[in-house]
Amino acid sequence: MNYRIDNLQYCKWSREIFEINREAELDAVHVTIAYHEDYKELLVRLNEWKELFKNNSDLIFLGKDFNDIIKSKSENKTAIFFGFQNCSPIEDDINLIEKVHEHGCRFMQLTYNNQSLLATGCYEKIDSGVTNFGREAIKEMNRVGIVIDMSHSAEKSTLDAIEISEKPIAITHANPSFWYEANRNKSDTLLKVLSQNGGMLGLSLYAHHLKNGSECKLESFCEMVARTADVMGVNNIGIGSDLCLNQPDSVVEWMRNGTWTKTKNYGEGSKDKPGFPNQPNWFVDARGFSNLENGLKIIGFSTEEVNGILGNNWFNFYKGIN
Amino acid sequence: MNYRIDNLQYCKWSREIFEINREAELDAVHVTIAYHEDYKELLVRLNEWKELFKNNSDLIFLGKDFNDIIKSKSENKTAIFFGFQNCSPIEDDINLIEKVHEHGCRFMQLTYNNQSLLATGCYEKIDSGVTNFGREAIKEMNRVGIVIDMSHSAEKSTLDAIEISEKPIAITHANPSFWYEANRNKSDTLLKVLSQNGGMLGLSLYAHHLKNGSECKLESFCEMVARTADVMGVNNIGIGSDLCLNQPDSVVEWMRNGTWTKTKNYGEGSKDKPGFPNQPNWFVDARGFSNLENGLKIIGFSTEEVNGILGNNWFNFYKGIN
Repeated sequence: MNYRIDNLQYCKWSREIFEINREAELDAVHVTIAYHEDYKELLVRLNEWKELFKNNSDLIFLGKDFNDIIKSKSENKTAIFFGFQNCSPIEDDINLIEKVHEHGCRFMQLTYNNQSLLATGCYEKIDSGVTNFGREAIKEMNRVGIVIDMSHSAEKSTLDAIEISEKPIAITHANPSFWYEANRNKSDTLLKVLSQNGGMLGLSLYAHHLKNGSECKLESFCEMVARTADVMGVNNIGIGSDLCLNQPDSVVEWMRNGTWTKTKNYGEGSKDKPGFPNQPNWFVDARGFSNLENGLKIIGFSTEEVNGILGNNWFNFYKGIN
Repeated sequence: MNYRIDNLQYCKWSREIFEINREAELDAVHVTIAYHEDYKELLVRLNEWKELFKNNSDLIFLGKDFNDIIKSKSENKTAIFFGFQNCSPIEDDINLIEKVHEHGCRFMQLTYNNQSLLATGCYEKIDSGVTNFGREAIKEMNRVGIVIDMSHSAEKSTLDAIEISEKPIAITHANPSFWYEANRNKSDTLLKVLSQNGGMLGLSLYAHHLKNGSECKLESFCEMVARTADVMGVNNIGIGSDLCLNQPDSVVEWMRNGTWTKTKNYGEGSKDKPGFPNQPNWFVDARGFSNLENGLKIIGFSTEEVNGILGNNWFNFYKGIN
């Protein structure tokens, strides 16, 4: 059986998007439900999702583990797995890790771009690695079954997390820096250590992570996938598109600035280009998975390898979460 | 006019303690009102203090600036200045800095022992310095008039804070490490930079910061003060006793462990000595200021210098806060 999984989306959720994801035959999507939300604010997001599940029960349901991906396949639905892009929802309380797991959380980034209580983000000048609290949090995440996601973290913090965690970790949405040098992309060294420890890299389709941005060519992307497979093996690569469909620009501004600064921070953007960038024309939404399928075959991947990259590798990773 | 100031106490507050502080002729005390409390929990502490002020209005009142120290002197009362030993009350929101200032906060540590969102604590393995949020927070604290207190912070973070802050900062309660090597004590280098930038060191009477702990001799302490004056000048030294009178041991356990770990952390203590240590017999409470006065005179300080160390230096520092 082959599964199609997009392991990171943060769209402005609506029936339209769930339909697109079904058209793309996605069996599972890891969705971001929190960035800077604290625990109380998370509960608001959870209520919003409760409504979405109720109103779109023919298209989606809450995924708890890999069995729900098998189920979604058989029911022609998409299993939605919850994740956080920052550790804000657990505040300073290790006991909230079990709570958020009970609420469905299966992935949590230890940091967004800045320093968190757990580790250092990729936009800080100095990376001190996983903190005292971070070490305890990783143990607890391992115990309850929440994947450590280091997509927005700095390198030493990520290497620390891989070492400390007793389970494989994930970088759900980023690309290798050998292809495009960006704060958010990852070094060969890191990718090797990640895969040697059973970790997954979800390749990103977000323009700021792509060579030539919105003008990135499908062929260039697929060449990058091939080289990445050389670096870290073909079984540790998946897709984490980072699609932010229908989100207004105010949302990316909030992602970057949260409530931590009174001056404006442009993150991966710039003063001239503060908003969301355009998607490349071969991946405007999840239906672009079919273009990826073609492109990866043309570049020389076998059918099995392509199916691995487009979902089966993530499926196998999900088997080890709990 | 001479003022007596203890620039750090965290007692289990009661009329008895306010009376002791009056007996010690303290014109001002900087009291810790929050460690790990978030903003909402801070409001509970503020309500508790409202009651304390109401029930002890003959002894204490809330101090807002240096004029209140002059006032307390003339009224034979003690001005109480609020401070936090961690940045938890501002959560991840820079706008809360102005709010806590409105509530009376005049000192805030950027970190307790662990990494915070603003800087690194002295119990972390690696010190990455002041963070992106920390840089913004310092600007805002400068603007509203909250002193940056780095007593529990690591060295690079402290040097960063001194450099970034446009106003002098404080180490309200710690001792020099040349006298007693401890995570919490400070290097000569740091103390020099601190004083060169107009900053203050409040010398601590807490046994874990003292040479020979609870058995520390007054003479040894006063020798240390003399050497510290050689390092950083006699005008940048004050007292921050760190008195925790009448607190049960469960409180020091909470200070150290907050809600960040499921295993027990002993901080400055140890498994054998987990609780509060005894005070040295010449400083069991603030009335020990008179012993300090004698000891400092014997060691060779002039009356003016002694008065500076026991309060006037802090008084002059308070003049620059707003």
